[in-house]
Formats: sequence, C-alpha cells, structure tokens
Amino acid sequence: MLEQIDLDLRLTKRAYTEQISELQTRLFHMEQALIEARRPVLILFEGWAGTAKARTIGVMVRRLDPRGIRVHSITPPRTYELQYPWLYRFWLKLPSYGQMAIFDRSWYREMLAERMRSADIQLWRQRCEDAVTFERQLADDGAIIIKFWLHISRKEQRKRFKALLKNKLTAHQVTDEDRQQQRNYSEYAAALEDLIARTGTQRAPWHVIPATNKYHARVAVISTVLAALEEQVDFQADTVDPKYASTGLDVAGAAFRRRFLDQMAAFTPAAPSPAAIKEPVHRPVRAEVAHILRRVDLSMRLDANEYTQQRRQLQAQLYLLGLALYHQRRPAVLVFEGWDAAGKGGAIQRLTAEIDPRSYTVHTIAAPAGEDKLRHYLYRFWRRLPPRGQFAIFDRSWYGRVLVERIEGFAQPAEWQRAYSEINEFERQLVDFGTIICKFWLHFSPDEQLRRFQQRKNVPFKAWKLTDEDWRNREKWPQYEEAVDEMLLRCSTPAAPWTVVEAEHKHFARIKVLRTVVQRLEAELGKVEL
Amino acid sequence: MLEQIDLDLRLTKRAYTEQISELQTRLFHMEQALIEARRPVLILFEGWAGTAKARTIGVMVRRLDPRGIRVHSITPPRTYELQYPWLYRFWLKLPSYGQMAIFDRSWYREMLAERMRSADIQLWRQRCEDAVTFERQLADDGAIIIKFWLHISRKEQRKRFKALLKNKLTAHQVTDEDRQQQRNYSEYAAALEDLIARTGTQRAPWHVIPATNKYHARVAVISTVLAALEEQVDFQADTVDPKYASTGLDVAGAAFRRRFLDQMAAFTPAAPSPAAIKEPVHRPVRAEVAHILRRVDLSMRLDANEYTQQRRQLQAQLYLLGLALYHQRRPAVLVFEGWDAAGKGGAIQRLTAEIDPRSYTVHTIAAPAGEDKLRHYLYRFWRRLPPRGQFAIFDRSWYGRVLVERIEGFAQPAEWQRAYSEINEFERQLVDFGTIICKFWLHFSPDEQLRRFQQRKNVPFKAWKLTDEDWRNREKWPQYEEAVDEMLLRCSTPAAPWTVVEAEHKHFARIKVLRTVVQRLEAELGKVEL
Repeated sequence: MLEQIDLDLRLTKRAYTEQISELQTRLFHMEQALIEARRPVLILFEGWAGTAKARTIGVMVRRLDPRGIRVHSITPPRTYELQYPWLYRFWLKLPSYGQMAIFDRSWYREMLAERMRSADIQLWRQRCEDAVTFERQLADDGAIIIKFWLHISRKEQRKRFKALLKNKLTAHQVTDEDRQQQRNYSEYAAALEDLIARTGTQRAPWHVIPATNKYHARVAVISTVLAALEEQVDFQADTVDPKYASTGLDVAGAAFRRRFLDQMAAFTPAAPSPAAIKEPVHRPVRAEVAHILRRVDLSMRLDANEYTQQRRQLQAQLYLLGLALYHQRRPAVLVFEGWDAAGKGGAIQRLTAEIDPRSYTVHTIAAPAGEDKLRHYLYRFWRRLPPRGQFAIFDRSWYGRVLVERIEGFAQPAEWQRAYSEINEFERQLVDFGTIICKFWLHFSPDEQLRRFQQRKNVPFKAWKLTDEDWRNREKWPQYEEAVDEMLLRCSTPAAPWTVVEAEHKHFARIKVLRTVVQRLEAELGKVEL
Repeated sequence: MLEQIDLDLRLTKRAYTEQISELQTRLFHMEQALIEARRPVLILFEGWAGTAKARTIGVMVRRLDPRGIRVHSITPPRTYELQYPWLYRFWLKLPSYGQMAIFDRSWYREMLAERMRSADIQLWRQRCEDAVTFERQLADDGAIIIKFWLHISRKEQRKRFKALLKNKLTAHQVTDEDRQQQRNYSEYAAALEDLIARTGTQRAPWHVIPATNKYHARVAVISTVLAALEEQVDFQADTVDPKYASTGLDVAGAAFRRRFLDQMAAFTPAAPSPAAIKEPVHRPVRAEVAHILRRVDLSMRLDANEYTQQRRQLQAQLYLLGLALYHQRRPAVLVFEGWDAAGKGGAIQRLTAEIDPRSYTVHTIAAPAGEDKLRHYLYRFWRRLPPRGQFAIFDRSWYGRVLVERIEGFAQPAEWQRAYSEINEFERQLVDFGTIICKFWLHFSPDEQLRRFQQRKNVPFKAWKLTDEDWRNREKWPQYEEAVDEMLLRCSTPAAPWTVVEAEHKHFARIKVLRTVVQRLEAELGKVEL
C-alpha cells in the first residue's frame, strides 16, 4: 500500500510560512484544553532514516507550553531494561493525565529491527499483539494515540544520506543501521506494510506522511495531530484568546486536513458507524457456576508438630529454588489477596524467611498516590515488576481494580468490567517474558474474621492493624464474595492460575501457600534436592 | 586502629542458639515500633570479602515483617547510573519513613575500589565529604544510620577463600577483585582506617565487628542494631506481646551490648555531653544587608522590536549551546522561582523554544505526594536530576523549603533553617559532577501583580491559572519578601549564583533570562558562533 502514497506532495515555503505559525498557535490552545480535559496524549514518530523526525518534532512543539510535554528519544534497550518485559520501559514513560508524550522512535523501533534481524514470525506476531494490546489499554483509559510514519522513497533517502555525508558536521548522523536500511529498502518496506496492517487500529491509527518535502510534512503532521485531538477533546472556541479568535484559521485548516485525511483513508480500517457499535453488556457469572468460595472446605487444619516439620522442609526447598531462579534469570511474581485478617502478612513472612533477602521485594499496595494516581492503573504495577532472577511479592495487587474499586465505586462499571481482560493480558505478557506467577486468595469464614478482629482489638501490640475500614469492609462480605468469585473464575489462566487457600486455620494456610509456591517453582525451574 | 580489634572473640553454637531467636524477636518488635515512629533506618554492611555478609543479613531479617524491609545489593555503577552524580543511585534507594533499607555493600564499596585504583587524594576527600554530608542530611531528617565493617585477618580471609575455591559450587564467589584484596590486604586496611576516621560520625558511626566466628558476628550485629534503635525509638514495653514480655532478655542483651560497645568506643569520636551542645540560634539576615528585592530597579524595559531581535539571536545561540552541552556530556539545571504571575512559564517557554526538544525536561513542582512525601524533601529533586547532556528546568524547586514551607509552617523552624546549608551542599555536589546551574528569581511590584491577576480573571482562557491560593499568598508579601531576601543571600554561591530578574516588564525579563543562560553556558562550554 505504501506505493499509493503520493511522494510528490509539496508546499512552497511561502505557503508554509503562512500556515505554520497559526497551526502552532492552535496546537498551543489545544494543549491547554487537554490539561483541562485531563486526557493523556502519545504521539509516535517513526519513519525512514533521514526524514528529520527530531526537526519535525521541534517545529511541532515550538509554541507549546514545555511543562505540558515530554519528548522521549528511544534507543535500543539498555542492559538494565532487558531485565524486564519489553514494554516495561514504555509503561514507565507514560504521560500523566493532561500531558503529551512525544516519542522520537518508539516501541516500533526495536520491533522493526528485530524483524530485519530474524525470521521468527512467531515473535513478530506476539510483539504486534502486545503493541496493539498496550495501545488499546491506554486508549480505553482515555489516551489519545497518534502514530506517524514519515515516508520517502529509496532514491530520496540515498540523496539525503549523500548530503549528510558530505558535511563533516552531519556525517556521523548516518549510521550503519541506516545504510543497511537503504540497502534493504524493499524488505524493510514490506515489513513496514505488515506492521501497519497489524497494528493500525481505529483508536491508534498509523498516519503515513509523505516527507519528500519538509514543509509539506510539517504541516501535515501538525494538522493530523490537531484533527485527532479536536475529534476527542471538546475544545470550546470561547475559551480562545480573542486575539486568535478571528483568524478564520479553522476553515483553511479543515480543508487541508480533509484533503490530507482522504489520502490517508487507505491506512485506517473502515470504521463501523458509531450507531452500529453496542457497548458489550456485562454478564456476571451465573449463580450455579459461582459460589467458588462457599464450596471451600474450611475444616482443613494441621497440628503444630506437623506444621513445623513441613514448614522447615518447604522453606529449605524454597531457599534452593530462589538460587535456581537467580541462576536461570527468571522473575517471579507472587500475589496475595484475601479477606482482612486472613493472614496474608504471616504467610508472606513464612515464605520469605529462608530466601536470600537480596532476592525479593514486598510491595504493600494501598490506594494509589502521587504519579501513580495520574496514570493508567496498571502503571504502578508495571513499575514494581521484578527484574530477572528476583521475586516481587504483592500484598494486595492489581486485583484491587475488580475488588475494592468495584465495590466502593472508585472504578466505573465499564472500567472494572474491562479489567478482567486487561489483567489477563498483563499477566500473559509477564508469562511470555518468562515470569513465574502464583496468586493466592486467603479464604476463611466471617466468624473466624470476627474472632481475629476481636483478638487484635484486645492485644495492644496488634491493635494498630485494625481500622474502621476493616469493620466497614466486613459489612460488605456478600458483595465481596460475589466479586471474588467472578475474579477467580475470570482470571484463572493456565499460566497464571489462582489458588484458593483454606485459611480458617493459620498453619494449614501457610503450608498450602509454601507448598504451592514450591511446586510451581519446581515445575518451572526443575526439582531441587535437599 | 584495626589491630586493636580482638579477632578471637567467639561464641559457642550453644550460646548462639540460646540468644539468637530472642534477639530476632526483639528486632521484630522494634520493627513495629519503627513503623509507628515513622523513622527510616539505613543499615550498611561492608567488610572484607569472605565474611558472609548476605548470610548475616539473612539471619538478621529472619523474623522481620518483610513488608518493612528492603535489601539492596550494591554492584559497581551501571552505565546509566554514571549519567548522574555518584550518590544519585543511593538517594533513589532511600527507605520511606518507617522502613528499613539494608545495604549489602553501599556507597563505600565504590569509594574503596576507587581509592585502591587511583592515588587521587582530592577525589577521595571529596567522596568522604559527600558521604558524611549525605548521612548527616538523612540523620537530620530522622534517619537512623548504622554502618558495619565485618572484620577478619588476612590469614583468616586466605583460609576462607581456599575453602570456597575447593567446592565447585562456591568457587565462583571468589572474584578477581577479592584476590586483589587478599594480596593488598594491608594497603586496603590502611585505606579503611582512613575511611572510618573520615566518615565515622556521631550520628552515623562505624561498628567494626570481629567476624572470625560467625556466631559472634551475628549476635554482635543484631545487638548493635537493637542498641542503636532502642536509643532512638521510644519503645514501650507495654506494647510488647505479653508472650515476650517476661524473657528478661533486655538485661542479658544490655550486658552483651555494653561489653561490645566499650570495645567499639575507639571508633566513634568522643561525644560532647548533650548539655554542652547548644542548638544554633537562627540569625535572620540583618535589615541593612537585606532588602535585596527592594533595591531592584523595576523600570527596566525593552521595546517590541528590540525584544524580537534579541530573542531570536539568543535562541539561536541557545540551540547551538544545547548541542555543545550534549556533545560535552554536561548536565544543566535551570531553576525558576518568583512571585505568582511574574512570568515563569512564559520565560521557560522562550528558553526552550529553539532547543532540541529531546534534550530538556520541565518539572512543575507542587506539593509533594506519594513516595516523595514519605522521604527526605530533597529525594524528589534527586530523582528528577538531568542525565549528562540534558537540561532539567524546574518551575519552582527545592527552594520551596525556605519559601512556602517556611511561611506556611509546613516545615519546622529547625528544618527550614538548616535547609540553606543542605541546599548549598546539594548544589555543590551537582556542580562537582559538572552540572551547570542557573537560578532565577522573577521580581516585580505588588501593583503589577494585581494588574496581572485582574487580567487573568477577565480572560476566560487564563482564568484557570488564578487560584484562591494566589490571593492568599499575595497577602503575605512582606513575609515572602523577607524569606526571599534571606534565600538570595544565603544560597548564592559562586558555582550556583542567583539571578534576580526585573520582571515588571515581560520583554525585559525574558531577554535577561535568555542572556543569563547563554552567558553561563558559554562560560562553561565555550563560545558559539552563529
């Protein structure tokens, strides 16, 4: 499809000068509107080597309030970034609500490079799927995503390289990678077409910009950005400084944009008419399927001697499995959820007792604050992922989205309803990277909870653990029960299964947790001999 | 002094087994007390290679709630960490209030390695001074700092290496660096003694632990930690679980500890008696010295033509200076403070307009939130420092400590009074690293402020910028004036001077900012030709 692009499109310097400053001003007003609308924006610049992406970005941000933007220059991943799933470093660069993040190269850089290096089509497909998932999750959270490919012909690229190489101040800009691109232009173009087909989605479309003429390219880029933003953000003309209100710009801009977008139409899949799209209806788990919790056998127990003996044995195995994890460079994620006072802390403590203390981190998850609060809810978990060879233990986790946030109404129904698949996607990406995941729900009866609450209340030493919130949550037991059942059902996947732990008796619960982790690690890392 | 250490100290396995579990339990209770007291703790483990530091840490944390601790394994700095001042990576690892951070090796690792590699005594002194400053700043903020050196003789080390090398599972633990340490034991010991003398302070003392016998070492380490914490944290016996209340442990522990601490006395400078220490009295700047602001000539202005011409020239220079900054791998920090509505945003915008947008980041500083709120106030600025070759622009900054926090009472008098030197120390460390610093105070008259407030109020487009807080701050003009005067006087250092900008007229202010930055960059990076 790339051959359809009219690479002869150009703009005279005069026309450019007439238009550019007004486009920049409109973008400045839009930036203010974004801040008010709290919509995050991601603008990606990809393109052939030699298309002056940085310069284009420079012109685009020229009049923006620099406090609202952040430009990221993406290089191949550094050593420490290779310790994490491949999208980790991009999650860390997410703009906060109301900010624009501009990427000079993006997650597509390494994807394309990998594709040129290797014929592993399986990996390519997986990467494309990950990228689409990533962008959809962001878009669902309100992000506006705009992806550019700056396009020139092979001949034009050769001409530009020559010009750069002639000047000794710019010669270093033409890298070996660039020369290779020039040599393999058509393979690269084929990969690119495949990429656009696979990752160009309705809410994160690719815009291929003819960039033979820099004036045309700049105007096209800014017009496209404006069009995308104006479609999404309610931009009231009466908030515009009167100084700019009467330029009549919109008309001229719109005409250009329409012409431009017509040409681009080939690259965005035809959208169904909005009326044809129905919001999917949330179907709660049916009653007879559910009641997972009610069917848990809470009579399970273990006497003290047996407990001590088994605990010691399992902890010794865990120590060795921790070493194996380190040597095999696999990360592990252990998630603890459960009723208040069900014994999460105690279970975690027995789990970590004999592991090398340098090899794990425990994250206690409360309400999000600071930068975590200004981004997609999964951001704060992405940034707490373990590197290769390490454990991350979560005392409460991303499942808060479908538990407390659902029940307390902190998340809208549409938000927690789509969270089941978002979480499955998230965990699948971790598993694809080699992460070993265990998830525990610690379950006991309301009576046992009451007993423990009263016990805590009476021991001054433990009293601080008991808050009014605990009593309030207790009143919502039935709602939680329903939410937990649904969570267990929807988010138990073969690679990241849930384990319901019978926690009426602490000894039994702790051994079950230890044993489950040992078995899972042994299945992944091989058996260890004591 | 190291030869004074009795390396024959030992404990039988029986005595160890009797004591260790109770010590671990006491430490667990102390951990709970720390959380309540919100005191952060840093425990550093340094020592000769072969002293099983990780194992000792393992025993120490054995019974702790893993949610309250974080163990950091310190390696030589990674490539990306070399982009920042050397203490950057340790600031990022600060424990939050109530947490314990345990360092398996620490900032002293690289210091000692550097010392062995190079004879640069100047650098050594600077590093020692930086470390002492770092620890003092943390201690002033409530941190409890405990530094261990695990000590064995050269002969003992050789024996241990042999044992490790015999077993093919452990042979890899003896590194080239370790062998070199064994060969140069006495030079290393001399460096170490110098290090202890320079960096052992009253509030962050070194504890040299005889580690020939592992049982002795473990008990000594935990006892020392307990002693240090009990001295600092009010640990009420009645909050202890009755189960542990009658072990009579404290007496036994205290005896051991006293014996142990007597032996250590040589390493901590004799402390003056508390009664002899007077809190320094805060001396506000004297009236005749002050009134810096009142003496500013606010009549300075620039006509529109001259403004445009100069602005263009300076922005073009800035573009080239940004490239020079990148090529010379120097970081730059630009700080903007000033009255509300004095034009910080506008000045920043003109400053960044022509710079490569990939080379700067603007940080807008409001009240601290999330993890920033749970740590030393400088933490949030350390983590926002620019890497080499980049600009970081701060729209408000660490000076909030001596401005808004002083005036609104968010900081205690003792806190903001010591902030002047803390800030000077912070900036000196940046300058030592090669950072170029410019700091601007944008000054205008109260009348001009009123005019701009009213203007903002009337333009719907700018109305959001004006908050009730702005009006409240305006009422405190005289207090701010005094605080600003004191800040300008105390924190203008040759390497990081303040520039007061006459901002009654925007054109003049913007040009002065641009010119100052250009001059400062040229002085550091060399002149650029347009």
